[in-house]
Amino acid sequence: MSITTLFNTKHPLIQAPMAGVQGSALAIAVTRAGGLGSLPCAMLSSAQIRDELSVIRAAFVDLSMDDFTPVNVNFFAHPLPTFDAVRESAWRTRLAGFYDEFGIDADSIVTGAGRAAFNDELAGVIEPFKPLVVSFHFGLPSADLMARVKSWGSKIIATATTVAEAVWLEKNGVDAIIAQGLEAGGHRGIFLANDGEPLSVDGWREVLSNQIGIFALLPQILKTVNVPVIAAGGIADAAGVAALLSMGAAAVQVGTAFMLCNECTTSSIHRAALQSPAAQHTALTNLFTGRPARGIINRLMHELGEIGDAPAFPLATSAMMPLRQRMEAAGSGDFTPLWAGQNVSGCRAVCAAVLVDELMSSS
Amino acid sequence: MSITTLFNTKHPLIQAPMAGVQGSALAIAVTRAGGLGSLPCAMLSSAQIRDELSVIRAAFVDLSMDDFTPVNVNFFAHPLPTFDAVRESAWRTRLAGFYDEFGIDADSIVTGAGRAAFNDELAGVIEPFKPLVVSFHFGLPSADLMARVKSWGSKIIATATTVAEAVWLEKNGVDAIIAQGLEAGGHRGIFLANDGEPLSVDGWREVLSNQIGIFALLPQILKTVNVPVIAAGGIADAAGVAALLSMGAAAVQVGTAFMLCNECTTSSIHRAALQSPAAQHTALTNLFTGRPARGIINRLMHELGEIGDAPAFPLATSAMMPLRQRMEAAGSGDFTPLWAGQNVSGCRAVCAAVLVDELMSSS
Repeated sequence: MSITTLFNTKHPLIQAPMAGVQGSALAIAVTRAGGLGSLPCAMLSSAQIRDELSVIRAAFVDLSMDDFTPVNVNFFAHPLPTFDAVRESAWRTRLAGFYDEFGIDADSIVTGAGRAAFNDELAGVIEPFKPLVVSFHFGLPSADLMARVKSWGSKIIATATTVAEAVWLEKNGVDAIIAQGLEAGGHRGIFLANDGEPLSVDGWREVLSNQIGIFALLPQILKTVNVPVIAAGGIADAAGVAALLSMGAAAVQVGTAFMLCNECTTSSIHRAALQSPAAQHTALTNLFTGRPARGIINRLMHELGEIGDAPAFPLATSAMMPLRQRMEAAGSGDFTPLWAGQNVSGCRAVCAAVLVDELMSSS
Repeated sequence: MSITTLFNTKHPLIQAPMAGVQGSALAIAVTRAGGLGSLPCAMLSSAQIRDELSVIRAAFVDLSMDDFTPVNVNFFAHPLPTFDAVRESAWRTRLAGFYDEFGIDADSIVTGAGRAAFNDELAGVIEPFKPLVVSFHFGLPSADLMARVKSWGSKIIATATTVAEAVWLEKNGVDAIIAQGLEAGGHRGIFLANDGEPLSVDGWREVLSNQIGIFALLPQILKTVNVPVIAAGGIADAAGVAALLSMGAAAVQVGTAFMLCNECTTSSIHRAALQSPAAQHTALTNLFTGRPARGIINRLMHELGEIGDAPAFPLATSAMMPLRQRMEAAGSGDFTPLWAGQNVSGCRAVCAAVLVDELMSSS
């Protein structure tokens, strides 16, 4: 089935959910422009999700009670870590030089998870809105939760970074698969160990070399599964969109290229970084959140090394927060996760609708 | 200028030079089929290069004295390392468990470089043959050597793994650039440090995260240089070839897909690995040669970690050789560099001409 039929969109284009740099405004703009807008929910409270979905619903005021909300709501489905005081302490010792440099009292740092995994409460929040699509990163929630989402008719899509993950997702009932090439910005969706079992909290360290460029990943997944495959990673222009569609992708998912759009909440520091020569050099790092994610190399990554002994996802967020806040207040992104893919050449400071039109102009 | 004009070929297709798994036979077959065959010279002696070029010359018996030999001869252009006895000794200590396991006397190991860089002697060897194309990996030789090669009319092409490297190559006079996506099998062509200077012998460790998927690399290089750009990495089928050409590549360079071809000298162990599920998981490793190259993960990489403290390129080859030979004699590739790209789905045990036809069937 074609994605445009599955999702009822004009274009086979999904705007990648990007927590921290966008909310309902971008999602609405992209959906209105004929793509499928996405609302990243991983860093939102239940109340915030409800508010954002209400805004989207209101924007499409002509929707009837029975209509789906024309958006993709995105959640994480990661295994929940146990807080490890020894590891947290060792990590703060590693960061002590930075705390000293900026006069931060390490004892004042609030610990706690920054990102919830999809659960019954969150399912209850979104159910009344019937989002057209519910997407998951880092695997899938329980079979019960999957069944619950399907019960009201939402389509489920999820990220695969390897052929094995794509097979697993199809077996576990997704309606379409996002093939995430390693060019992609933000968190790697990686969720299976080499033995085919779901990754443990720190298991990603063993399989990071599994990550594959979209050009190699897409055809191999297409050969292996029967559900539609959505290509993601490094897509920055119309020629790229057309090329991936010609290779058999049912749709493309584009993230980085939208980050300068007027409807995004991308900070001025992040916007400047995306337009600087530094954006040529991104890397996967676990220092900010505890899981590998692609961002522009900054002082923290440079000085500590990109992959380090940070606490498990998402607990690593806490120790970094005061450093990040202090430096951002001083106009610096030295300790900010500057998520970006390997091709920022498509970033345009325009309305999202203009970018959607441009991306689809050759297809 | 189109590549088919530049190289006088029917198809915009270069067979990637693959030292160790092919010689003149594959090069001849690919050129005859309408692509540009390549002769990897990095592991050949001067006499062997002369012999191989004579074979190629003889195959095209209708060539006149003034004609170019229709082949791409490939050389490495790496900085030469100084032998470091302390480092070599430490590395052998790291391998001692393996030597013990297989009853190998470490003192019997012959040290020495396994791969020469292009030099005056080698230029003298190829000059009488006037190869149509001379290609370089790991940067370029000196300006004098470049001028010498150009003096007899060969075209020069070289590998870029980043936009900065492509700019540097264009500035230094190449006729075309090979954009090597990180999907590619074998050695990364990486040669520039982040400061834009040529890498020191071990400098690649600092910039490995620079490596980019072909889908992100190609458009960014195309936007930046004016010479033709040849796309490489993960190309396994006609749809992939057509997609990259549609994105603006002047040609494609395909390696891994040829490795099972009848004309290749790929060993039975390597052939079996390429056709096994293990081929799904490749990684960059420096353990075999001292520089990062993509191969199928085997026992050595698994047990030591893919990137380790091996001696500088190409000195690392020595310590591994007895382990490799012992295990290959026992039918195992546990210590063999099983070079492969991230997409082995295009490997076909056919005549190269069949594969060339298939790859070009959509273009």
